[in-house]
Amino acid sequence: MPFWKNDRVTPAQIIILGFFTLILAGTALLMLPFAVSGGERASFLDALFTATSATCVTGLVLHDTALYWSSFGQAVILLLIQIGGMGVVTMAVAISIFTGKKIGLRQRWIMQESISAPQVGGIVRQTRFILKTAFLIEAAGAVLLSLRFCPEFGFFKGLWYGLFHSVSAFCNAGFDLMGAGGSAFSSLTGYTGDFLVSCTVAALIVLGGLGFLTWHDFREHGPRLRSYRLQSRLILTTTFALITGGFLYLFLFEFRQPQWQDLSLGQRAAASLFQSVTPRTAGFNTVDLGRLSQPGQLMMILLMLIGGSPGSTAGGFKTTTLAVLLLSSYAVFRRRGSAQCFGRRIPDETLRSAAAILLLYLLLFLTGGVLISIIDGVPLMAALFETASAIGTVGLSLGITPGLSSPSRLILIILMYFGRVGGLTMIYAVTSGTPVPMTQFPQERVTVG
Amino acid sequence: MPFWKNDRVTPAQIIILGFFTLILAGTALLMLPFAVSGGERASFLDALFTATSATCVTGLVLHDTALYWSSFGQAVILLLIQIGGMGVVTMAVAISIFTGKKIGLRQRWIMQESISAPQVGGIVRQTRFILKTAFLIEAAGAVLLSLRFCPEFGFFKGLWYGLFHSVSAFCNAGFDLMGAGGSAFSSLTGYTGDFLVSCTVAALIVLGGLGFLTWHDFREHGPRLRSYRLQSRLILTTTFALITGGFLYLFLFEFRQPQWQDLSLGQRAAASLFQSVTPRTAGFNTVDLGRLSQPGQLMMILLMLIGGSPGSTAGGFKTTTLAVLLLSSYAVFRRRGSAQCFGRRIPDETLRSAAAILLLYLLLFLTGGVLISIIDGVPLMAALFETASAIGTVGLSLGITPGLSSPSRLILIILMYFGRVGGLTMIYAVTSGTPVPMTQFPQERVTVG
Ligand SMILES: [K+]
Ligand SMILES: [K+]
Repeated sequence: MPFWKNDRVTPAQIIILGFFTLILAGTALLMLPFAVSGGERASFLDALFTATSATCVTGLVLHDTALYWSSFGQAVILLLIQIGGMGVVTMAVAISIFTGKKIGLRQRWIMQESISAPQVGGIVRQTRFILKTAFLIEAAGAVLLSLRFCPEFGFFKGLWYGLFHSVSAFCNAGFDLMGAGGSAFSSLTGYTGDFLVSCTVAALIVLGGLGFLTWHDFREHGPRLRSYRLQSRLILTTTFALITGGFLYLFLFEFRQPQWQDLSLGQRAAASLFQSVTPRTAGFNTVDLGRLSQPGQLMMILLMLIGGSPGSTAGGFKTTTLAVLLLSSYAVFRRRGSAQCFGRRIPDETLRSAAAILLLYLLLFLTGGVLISIIDGVPLMAALFETASAIGTVGLSLGITPGLSSPSRLILIILMYFGRVGGLTMIYAVTSGTPVPMTQFPQERVTVG
Repeated sequence: MPFWKNDRVTPAQIIILGFFTLILAGTALLMLPFAVSGGERASFLDALFTATSATCVTGLVLHDTALYWSSFGQAVILLLIQIGGMGVVTMAVAISIFTGKKIGLRQRWIMQESISAPQVGGIVRQTRFILKTAFLIEAAGAVLLSLRFCPEFGFFKGLWYGLFHSVSAFCNAGFDLMGAGGSAFSSLTGYTGDFLVSCTVAALIVLGGLGFLTWHDFREHGPRLRSYRLQSRLILTTTFALITGGFLYLFLFEFRQPQWQDLSLGQRAAASLFQSVTPRTAGFNTVDLGRLSQPGQLMMILLMLIGGSPGSTAGGFKTTTLAVLLLSSYAVFRRRGSAQCFGRRIPDETLRSAAAILLLYLLLFLTGGVLISIIDGVPLMAALFETASAIGTVGLSLGITPGLSSPSRLILIILMYFGRVGGLTMIYAVTSGTPVPMTQFPQERVTVG
């Protein structure tokens, strides 16, 4: 009997093992001699870092993807992005569906945990829907991007670039092949004011980051937002608020500073929009982030830590976590009994999880940043930017990644893995997942704040 | 009828108005011509800043206290520290007690809110106890410090210095007169390895920062920690853990770095101990903080944000808030129903308040820091250090305070006031304090993290 049919293995354990296996397979493939274009083989740690970054759809890179990896290597990376982005379990279920295998209740339960669905019903239909939607959107994105890339790079290379960047954007991976133009690690900085590329990529990022359940609500209810489940409405509201807030800050403060004088008003608007979308786990950039002011970098770090929405391709501590904490704070300030919004009450249990996740992410982010700063003697801000980027599976960087020592690389690998698998999944996998029966101790008040 | 006898005025409103009145009175006194030693009068904003800093026991200063202010000015500052430190309401009740006035149920209720006491019973006895303990400890501290200062500065000046620094340390104010030695803003850097001064001041700080209720438990139960109320046990545990953690970090990492080569092993131990105690709202320093590494500065910022314990002279989001959040996170990871420790359950309501306070402090700290950094063009880290110091009513600084523009000074004044009065008190005062009756919306789950 394979281990995943063992009843004592929890969904959380299967999810983390699935990602782990995928990363190891990717590492092995990337260590093949013909995965690298120069002829020299990639070292184990380099291959592991790249496979983790691709599988966890992070996008932090040690080598420029287009210049270092061969076409085979790039294809491996794209495959890891696609499987990792959709979720290992979703892909496994997809294979079962296509091969006509029967899917038992247990698999459905694992699947539910994996896409953060609130109930088990219709999980197979949902998987079918998720896959169909994903491939449709990715295809549309590839066509739109090819309109720009085919004239620029030639027909076939243009198509390949369109596909690669569409998948990479939709899965919020942030890997790019733009180093081929000559300057390594340039990401999309060649398209600062290009509305076709900026808007297509931004749209792919946002759609991918909204999460499968939100698409499902959209299919069921169309524009009737009132019928959406609470989670989808929170996700849409928070996403909208964060993008708007980020845009306003960047447009009104950041890009008016002297170092950005070379941008026209239109470029400033496009750059503000793109850069407010991308730290929410996408990881592309159309401007050089090293030129950001310090408050601008802090803003980016915060957006990266928040990340995307649950049940999507995104990392970070998630939009719903932020929403629940804010709603609960508002309830406290109004002396209300519990958090509420859109005519629904949010259970206290959810707040407890949200607070725990926030603390856990802050702890890992700060500890990782301090360690990297001490180990490699890099400025603290750059190190914190790097760890926020890793745990939010964002992939933006102030440029220190390629120069980091092995211990620092390992820290980032762990943070990327943690960020993609998700804080609670990780902890439940370790703590065996069975709820501890609660001892009813007497209650005692404590004064806080 | 005076307004504080009006039944519609809440304790929260009386507390914030009390502090406000005290600050205004202090400002007026400090603007008198003979409050300044040079003869020139202090400007309104300078006097307001200093009075706020003293009343809110913060210790951020625009001018060196010993060099700029006259003996009269210094005495005003000491009085503001003593009243602000003990709490405006405690002092008012104290005056009522000494003048033999009867204290009504309403005053007791206000008093309870002011010292964060869980129940109303015996509030007058408690006030008497608080005052007696405070003055005894301050007197003992003054005597110990005079042993060092009398030989150094002469008998009377030595006594005055002993008293000033004892009160300033016990009230966690962080004001000092050491600029008289010649170098302005030197704080206690002249006593890096001096065990008498270091230990006396550190002990005063810790005792003052533990909170009135903890002393009360100590009086009632002595060393039988098991009989202490949950709050006191959380305070003692968290305080111990934070001081130990800070000490180990500073001793093992920070003070081994090249810029601290001039410290001997003993000095390093004393400096580590003192600097792990002081960011928890005390605000003295025995080493030049500008020489700290960036991770060391971050460590300090975190300790300053946490601050001291509720019902004490301290600011910050408080040790119990941290403890409740950590216990609750642990409960989530163990899939337990609620936070528990020492055989007691912590109500969900407390967690809600703790999460709200944490978010509020983080928001104010970050917003203030970003604004100051943008307005005055100072490095973000120095600005964040400053705002953490203000909101934690700590008073440590990387040295940028005297050079800040008026808007930045106003931001710090607001943060100091907010930090001393306390987040919830402030918000309840604004939102009128009456609990909103809860509408029983249907409950709906949301996935977080
Ligand atoms: K990414
Ligand atoms: K202080």
